[in-house]
Amino acid sequence: MKALVYKGPGQKSWEEVPDPAIQRPTDVIVKMVATTICGTDLHILKGDVPEVQAGRILGHEGIGVITEIGSGVTQLAVGDRVILACISSCGKCSNCRQGLYSHCLDPEGTPGIGWIFGYMIDGTQAEFVRVPFAENSVYKVPETMTDAEGILLSDILPTGFEIGVQYGHVQPGDIVAVVGSGPVGLAAVMTARLYGPSKIIAIDLDPARLARAKDFGATNTVNSGDKDWKEQVLALTDGAGVDVAIEAVGVPLTFTMATEIVRPGGHVANVGVHGKPVDLKLNELWIKNINISTGLVNTNTLGMLLKLVAEHALPADKFVTHTFSFDQVLEAYDVFGHAAEHDALKVLIH
Amino acid sequence: MKALVYKGPGQKSWEEVPDPAIQRPTDVIVKMVATTICGTDLHILKGDVPEVQAGRILGHEGIGVITEIGSGVTQLAVGDRVILACISSCGKCSNCRQGLYSHCLDPEGTPGIGWIFGYMIDGTQAEFVRVPFAENSVYKVPETMTDAEGILLSDILPTGFEIGVQYGHVQPGDIVAVVGSGPVGLAAVMTARLYGPSKIIAIDLDPARLARAKDFGATNTVNSGDKDWKEQVLALTDGAGVDVAIEAVGVPLTFTMATEIVRPGGHVANVGVHGKPVDLKLNELWIKNINISTGLVNTNTLGMLLKLVAEHALPADKFVTHTFSFDQVLEAYDVFGHAAEHDALKVLIH
Amino acid sequence: MKALVYKGPGQKSWEEVPDPAIQRPTDVIVKMVATTICGTDLHILKGDVPEVQAGRILGHEGIGVITEIGSGVTQLAVGDRVILACISSCGKCSNCRQGLYSHCLDPEGTPGIGWIFGYMIDGTQAEFVRVPFAENSVYKVPETMTDAEGILLSDILPTGFEIGVQYGHVQPGDIVAVVGSGPVGLAAVMTARLYGPSKIIAIDLDPARLARAKDFGATNTVNSGDKDWKEQVLALTDGAGVDVAIEAVGVPLTFTMATEIVRPGGHVANVGVHGKPVDLKLNELWIKNINISTGLVNTNTLGMLLKLVAEHALPADKFVTHTFSFDQVLEAYDVFGHAAEHDALKVLIH
Amino acid sequence: MKALVYKGPGQKSWEEVPDPAIQRPTDVIVKMVATTICGTDLHILKGDVPEVQAGRILGHEGIGVITEIGSGVTQLAVGDRVILACISSCGKCSNCRQGLYSHCLDPEGTPGIGWIFGYMIDGTQAEFVRVPFAENSVYKVPETMTDAEGILLSDILPTGFEIGVQYGHVQPGDIVAVVGSGPVGLAAVMTARLYGPSKIIAIDLDPARLARAKDFGATNTVNSGDKDWKEQVLALTDGAGVDVAIEAVGVPLTFTMATEIVRPGGHVANVGVHGKPVDLKLNELWIKNINISTGLVNTNTLGMLLKLVAEHALPADKFVTHTFSFDQVLEAYDVFGHAAEHDALKVLIH
Repeated sequence: MKALVYKGPGQKSWEEVPDPAIQRPTDVIVKMVATTICGTDLHILKGDVPEVQAGRILGHEGIGVITEIGSGVTQLAVGDRVILACISSCGKCSNCRQGLYSHCLDPEGTPGIGWIFGYMIDGTQAEFVRVPFAENSVYKVPETMTDAEGILLSDILPTGFEIGVQYGHVQPGDIVAVVGSGPVGLAAVMTARLYGPSKIIAIDLDPARLARAKDFGATNTVNSGDKDWKEQVLALTDGAGVDVAIEAVGVPLTFTMATEIVRPGGHVANVGVHGKPVDLKLNELWIKNINISTGLVNTNTLGMLLKLVAEHALPADKFVTHTFSFDQVLEAYDVFGHAAEHDALKVLIH
Repeated sequence: MKALVYKGPGQKSWEEVPDPAIQRPTDVIVKMVATTICGTDLHILKGDVPEVQAGRILGHEGIGVITEIGSGVTQLAVGDRVILACISSCGKCSNCRQGLYSHCLDPEGTPGIGWIFGYMIDGTQAEFVRVPFAENSVYKVPETMTDAEGILLSDILPTGFEIGVQYGHVQPGDIVAVVGSGPVGLAAVMTARLYGPSKIIAIDLDPARLARAKDFGATNTVNSGDKDWKEQVLALTDGAGVDVAIEAVGVPLTFTMATEIVRPGGHVANVGVHGKPVDLKLNELWIKNINISTGLVNTNTLGMLLKLVAEHALPADKFVTHTFSFDQVLEAYDVFGHAAEHDALKVLIH
Repeated sequence: MKALVYKGPGQKSWEEVPDPAIQRPTDVIVKMVATTICGTDLHILKGDVPEVQAGRILGHEGIGVITEIGSGVTQLAVGDRVILACISSCGKCSNCRQGLYSHCLDPEGTPGIGWIFGYMIDGTQAEFVRVPFAENSVYKVPETMTDAEGILLSDILPTGFEIGVQYGHVQPGDIVAVVGSGPVGLAAVMTARLYGPSKIIAIDLDPARLARAKDFGATNTVNSGDKDWKEQVLALTDGAGVDVAIEAVGVPLTFTMATEIVRPGGHVANVGVHGKPVDLKLNELWIKNINISTGLVNTNTLGMLLKLVAEHALPADKFVTHTFSFDQVLEAYDVFGHAAEHDALKVLIH
Repeated sequence: MKALVYKGPGQKSWEEVPDPAIQRPTDVIVKMVATTICGTDLHILKGDVPEVQAGRILGHEGIGVITEIGSGVTQLAVGDRVILACISSCGKCSNCRQGLYSHCLDPEGTPGIGWIFGYMIDGTQAEFVRVPFAENSVYKVPETMTDAEGILLSDILPTGFEIGVQYGHVQPGDIVAVVGSGPVGLAAVMTARLYGPSKIIAIDLDPARLARAKDFGATNTVNSGDKDWKEQVLALTDGAGVDVAIEAVGVPLTFTMATEIVRPGGHVANVGVHGKPVDLKLNELWIKNINISTGLVNTNTLGMLLKLVAEHALPADKFVTHTFSFDQVLEAYDVFGHAAEHDALKVLIH
């Protein structure tokens, strides 16, 4: 089959590789129908994630059709059209039993991390993929759901919802600020509406992204390049700050911004992937009764979000700005790698 | 009356001052029966809390008898023996309605902070004290409760329970670590039992304090002076870390310790008062699905804890190691200020 | 002043009565701007609520302007335009501190019940009304809010939301059924959206009410006069039943209907006022892991709902179908008393 | 092998039957070390549960050693000493993913009910038993745990804890009443302590059972044969009722008792297995803001309780009053069937 193979820092290739095969009784093989590229893939290509070895097929999102099932699989069948959760989890260990799939204790990769596609095992930017723990890790898709809707459910929508909105304890009437209007920030903006907030404030440096945030459900926008950005945010509240501040970038500055606009009793939900420590002003925050959460997505709300997308309660297809065929995957990387230039958000490869 | 007056950095005096008087219809006047000293009082005396002005009567804990009530007070009467919550709160603003008394929006002091005794208004180390918002801020005491039990309920027990145990989401079966075995750490140790943890691990540098922690309910102790202290803690778990790590010191090192021993999906509850920012390793923690909480006590569990102390379900009197009369208050400060030397925990002044 | 006075079973009169006066330091006097009629008022008039004595001014909903304040009132001022919560509560007793205002332990009426207007004390269908515990029981209204929006916040919207939606634990993606499409059922339909359900199924005998339910946010309707109504509901689920069934009528049949369509692990939230016991099939339900809740509104979400109505996130004004002046109050009762005939929902009296 | 076989109403036999065999890749075979008898077994023998067919091996509790594993089992091994949960669940369906194992959608028996041992498939009162969905349904036992401790974890302790204590939302400081002091009532009494209540009131007709309840952790007892039993209970509260009333008998009278002693805002947790409908006084309860829960145990806390039993935090072995060998099983039934006469609670068969 053909697949997008990581060849070491800065190098990748769409090339012929052996087809995957069932290895455990709980595996299935899926013929990919559509996949997409995540910011993490760009990090891996830059060499930022050294545990990914040359030769690894990239990608952890996608939708496809089952072509083979392991001997222990009883709830899935050949021919099922399925979404692949970006997290593979056994479903039986003590963490999985609590819905903490991201920290499955029995993964095939790094102990205690359920994200393994395109990382510890071959990923989804390929014609076929082997899926471990399939019954706990893939979700059947109704016929009416498009590929563009489906691929958003692998990672980006559950991440924004679980790690941003749910860990942030968004409640009806809340004022929510989302720092960063990239794909995951917009996923938080879109899914925050599920808990009936009174305001969703998108904060970003780029006016084009802020305009898009409005289209995704933000009620207000603030350009963080403005000197008085913080005053602008506070002016949208009663002066005490937002109820929930969601960090969706992954650098120290944006995390600090989130801690500066949250009200006493409020929540800071960190979604961004950080490469550096941050300076936490505990001397100011110890007295504020705030809550800071972090996390890798569990995809334990994937089934619920799938239902809402299927009923068009969440317009997931808005995320896809560009479409490519599998053999145009290098071009797709080009566009996604220069997203601002191309006004790209998510690219669909099918 | 006589009171302990702050005279500027490093100076205090037990001296004659005017009696307090009712100022608002919601005030009461209380004749103090017993009070105690808190670590915060020592900080104020050092000059660490510059907003406290010379002339201020210190203290925010205590038990007494009501001698006068304001015209708007209907649920309290002269003669009632009451505990003074260290937090004064109106009970009606949007924060108070959510139980966030610590951030009452209508205080007499710093806007948005409910702790005002011995800080923004005169405190409890005096023969009489004026209590604002009395109906929301004092609690009637059953006759059977001793003064030693009562004064613990003003601050230390609710702080350990609310900010440590409840914000830390302790659940039955959990393994809880408490970093620091001073009064507030021991309050967390003692009250953690209310949620049925399987283990309570006390961590401290001082063997004498660790021995006391055992007496207060710790099931295990670890000396953090040991090079392998972290390994010792992890060995008491399944290797992945504790479910809840409570920080009860207030310096960067102990906060970092707490973040290093918490398991994925676990909670870090900061109780300590911090004077400096801390370096938060978000590069390691973003993926761990942890929760970090901070906070000033709300005293919204004071009534419940009072019931448990009254029924001897919580042996609150264990905290009092030394007893003084009001005119020995300077001596009491001496002993409490050199707690290690005197093996002192809390001092009762009555 | 003029007021609508209950003169014993079947009799009422719009007549001259003495103006109300401040009785306690926590009272305020409000000049009513608008009020409305509740189904409960009709019950009282029928003589169904014998504890209401002849001479009582009816009504427990409304909006007005403060004309006088008690000596203990500091957070409200003469001239404030306010909504009167239908529940009067001290805000300080142990129940109030938990948000259980409906069971305030220090009411002026029946011990332990916070609903007293038009019941234990004179009500809101009058030119002026005395409001006890005013700081905890009235809410300032932004200028932009209309009277029609405001009166819905006294009772009907909080009742549907708190006792139906919140007690029913509606969660994103849930399928919610609301049995009964009268005012309170429609309030549940409208506010259920705040928790992002995938479907809201309105169930009623009357096609006109079902059509209105669609306008209020129901995604599906089922006529309970159909023989296969239950099958129709189950067909909208995976066959196992709805996640939340809200009873909004108050007769045994509709309560039983709710218990028959709820799925294992689901919730039945009773909102209806019942006059008779019901036959609970515990022989079938003991094994179903369901939850049944009951309750009188607390109005502890009134402030939050007010914010959402002010921002037009909840179209509260849809409820008002007819408008009358105060001296047309008898006519208003006529229309509301024959609601089906007039296609009436809520009547505004101003 | 030998097993206890149900031969139709009133008849049972300890007889030779074929050994069980692996049927699905997720099965294991367990050689039983110890089992026990449940009240449900007596009901089946009386013919009260007609879906149980003659020829069925009875029993759904026990501890044993794995002798064979299916091809899909990777987390268990031959030789593992395990507790069998009384609930068999796939761990992957939408109910199981929420911890609602009792309503597993993919059972081998009645659709949607996870209790199948000794009911839909052969049970545990035998020398060997086939366990479906083994990885989700058995728990490894530490060497130090006795058989007497282990068998309590199959059903009785999780039932009392999950359906009584957790569904009843017991909180620190609460007053809890448990109606019925049979095995499951005592399990609720013992495990209620895990949430730090201030009082646990055992209510029963039998002084001997009440005496035992004290030994299991009840702080107070009330004999429900006393005319003023209800007044006695209320006198132990502030007069408004208990916070949580746990029904652990299963007849209409005891359920009604529970609803009569619960305070406004409180919880009624039904644990008893009911054969008849009950008359629910919704005319009185609609206004009380109470919560009524029902349920079959999920055993999703079995792992946590096992940890507490292993650390002797829960004295589970107190339940076993009589011990028999497997070939004395008929005698064991005799003793358990006349429990009062023999002062029997749980019998251990090994």
